[in-house]
Amino acid sequence: MEFEKITIVGLGLIGGSLAWALKESKQVKTVVGVDPDKETVKYALGNGIIDEGSSDISEGVEGAEIVVIATHVGIIPDTAKSIFESATEGAIITDVGSVKSSIVKRIESNLPDNLNFIGGHPIAGTEHSGVKFADSNLFKGRRCILTPTQKTETEVVNKVSKMWEAVGSQVYEMDPETHDHIFSIVSHLPHVIAFSLVNTVLNAKDNDELMDFAGGGLKDYTRVAASSPEMWTEIFKANKDQLLEAISKFNGTLKEIEQAIENEDFESLRKQLENAARTKRNL
Amino acid sequence: MEFEKITIVGLGLIGGSLAWALKESKQVKTVVGVDPDKETVKYALGNGIIDEGSSDISEGVEGAEIVVIATHVGIIPDTAKSIFESATEGAIITDVGSVKSSIVKRIESNLPDNLNFIGGHPIAGTEHSGVKFADSNLFKGRRCILTPTQKTETEVVNKVSKMWEAVGSQVYEMDPETHDHIFSIVSHLPHVIAFSLVNTVLNAKDNDELMDFAGGGLKDYTRVAASSPEMWTEIFKANKDQLLEAISKFNGTLKEIEQAIENEDFESLRKQLENAARTKRNL
Repeated sequence: MEFEKITIVGLGLIGGSLAWALKESKQVKTVVGVDPDKETVKYALGNGIIDEGSSDISEGVEGAEIVVIATHVGIIPDTAKSIFESATEGAIITDVGSVKSSIVKRIESNLPDNLNFIGGHPIAGTEHSGVKFADSNLFKGRRCILTPTQKTETEVVNKVSKMWEAVGSQVYEMDPETHDHIFSIVSHLPHVIAFSLVNTVLNAKDNDELMDFAGGGLKDYTRVAASSPEMWTEIFKANKDQLLEAISKFNGTLKEIEQAIENEDFESLRKQLENAARTKRNL
Repeated sequence: MEFEKITIVGLGLIGGSLAWALKESKQVKTVVGVDPDKETVKYALGNGIIDEGSSDISEGVEGAEIVVIATHVGIIPDTAKSIFESATEGAIITDVGSVKSSIVKRIESNLPDNLNFIGGHPIAGTEHSGVKFADSNLFKGRRCILTPTQKTETEVVNKVSKMWEAVGSQVYEMDPETHDHIFSIVSHLPHVIAFSLVNTVLNAKDNDELMDFAGGGLKDYTRVAASSPEMWTEIFKANKDQLLEAISKFNGTLKEIEQAIENEDFESLRKQLENAARTKRNL
């Protein structure tokens, strides 16, 4: 056994899947699940997703060597704070939030000396949410990014890396700002755009007729736009500055295509489309 | 046998798949394939995709009761024109172009009295092109739109409908302008946006690193943006006005989300995202 006790706070899709995957890894003696919703805890216990469960966060984190905060992005820093008193001396707190810089800064600035923190972001998920969609294979073959800072001890990076490797992930390290820059472009911006495109369709007077023909290219976007509005509001809020920068860059690129069409400069248009099409090779 | 002879002009993904599907339907005595590229004709003959083949369009359309123009959008009207002299009295010409209004207008204005024309658009395809990706099941369970005008006889609508039904499609009728409006929003706009987003990523200095994390939401877009640049340039050109209108509407919707983030009006942001997320129910 690599670990004695790991506690997951927040048994949603990610938290539930991580708890379950850790249990199945046989690398953890006790996987504890904490969730304010008693029914969720009951479901997780009843379905073998966790070994022990509680709706009392202080009770749940007691004795855990790693506490993973898997709540919505917006409440991660406050959840961390509420753990500081009851966590065991030397424990490592980590999280799974899709935004890192603002979270890491807030937690590090309050962290007691006898506890450790490292930010994490598993690149996994679906458009579903909730423990009922938990999947013990969710992290297999997927990447997990850890964002150590100057304050993070090597031992902490190693331990949390081992936890993610135990559920089949490959661990990457980068600083929180680099993480947020990358994800503002490859994830947050695509979501902003999908939400905008779908709203463009819904705002049209004939939107029922339009939706009938969504197979013509729109369908991929509606899937992305069906992700949790609460979750994405929190992510966009937490990564505001980098995201606005990304949207501004996108506006510039779209403007170039728009102008080529408007000016009937089809040679420039074709070159811009060719540029985009060549990415297929990179994936 | 419903049909004696149907000729497909242009053996690309759509033309090749239609020829093959018609052959397998056993509803057509002779399926003829025409393509300027001799190797393509040879491949189609060798793989049982067509019964007869030719690189001479006049020879290929001789005696056909239906001629389907399955070339790129940009050359459909000129291809139709080149068929007028050699087509058999009473023959029906139709096409598979993703834009209808400009094509239908140009062909109808030149059409000899002894020939018929109706515009068509099968809602099928992949990001691949070429006869080697032909698939005889491509149209099964998919929609095909026909765009009759005041000049179109009922008999012509019925015959071309039967052809598409023979390959498993459901036929819908609408006027060319309605078609172009719908597809400017559900298909052409999503493609413009995918091309723009992917170019935003490629224009970034650290684009290699960004592409490494494309799984975070970008991947769906890169697939869309990998479609043929030539084909999409022609489609954007042929549907210029409706597409510019669609882009303008999208810009307005994106601006609303952007401003909600900028002004930290997260209540408005959440409402906008909720609006988009509810489409999932409609699909």
